[in-house]
Amino acid sequence: MSYTLDKRVEGEFDEVIEQTTDALADEGFGVLCDIDIQQAFKTKLDKEYRQYRILGACNPPLAHQALEEELQLGTLLPCNVVVYETDDGEVGVSAVDPEVMLSVVDNPELDKIAADVREQFERVLNELPNA
Amino acid sequence: MSYTLDKRVEGEFDEVIEQTTDALADEGFGVLCDIDIQQAFKTKLDKEYRQYRILGACNPPLAHQALEEELQLGTLLPCNVVVYETDDGEVGVSAVDPEVMLSVVDNPELDKIAADVREQFERVLNELPNA
Repeated sequence: MSYTLDKRVEGEFDEVIEQTTDALADEGFGVLCDIDIQQAFKTKLDKEYRQYRILGACNPPLAHQALEEELQLGTLLPCNVVVYETDDGEVGVSAVDPEVMLSVVDNPELDKIAADVREQFERVLNELPNA
Repeated sequence: MSYTLDKRVEGEFDEVIEQTTDALADEGFGVLCDIDIQQAFKTKLDKEYRQYRILGACNPPLAHQALEEELQLGTLLPCNVVVYETDDGEVGVSAVDPEVMLSVVDNPELDKIAADVREQFERVLNELPNA
């Protein structure tokens, strides 16, 4: 079983970042952190790397509900959506599958929240144009 | 099996954030994102919440190695260390257990990296003063 939901997307890298951010916003997710891996590897390791961004997406009402259930759940938040150049020069978008990620947490109260976030992430990917 | 490594820490909240950040730096981890959950819930939901910070910790050489093995692994990065007020007013620090988190990824090449990060996080927690 894969731990991600994946799609190849039509468009330039920066455009896909913008579309992904907008599609997340439409589902109630803000991007609470945005990590530029290419830049981090250049700065810290002096290594060239493909374009790769980690968008940490948080739906505040769902995050609040989840943390009320499970205080330490912040170690698994926010839920990431990554945008990257693929080996063949296309743009890929992958969202963590919240149901798989939360399978490591033994708390059935989180199942409904994980299922909701999974559906939202599926809709986000559906919003993006197919490559 | 728990998905976190946990400790109650002596000290004021902000002081513990600083000590945790320093201890992570000693193990080669930069904090690539720092999410203030209390502030986020106040701003987005107008709800009061305990002090709670999510520190997204990244060890660049290990992250590079891990992403070379598994392109979509960014959906599970960085590895989070959270600092929070406990129900009884102490300060708690929890790090995600990278071995448990990476158990959802079917790639044995990551086992050694996960074990290394787990040991580093154990040393980080050991550096913090017991409550």
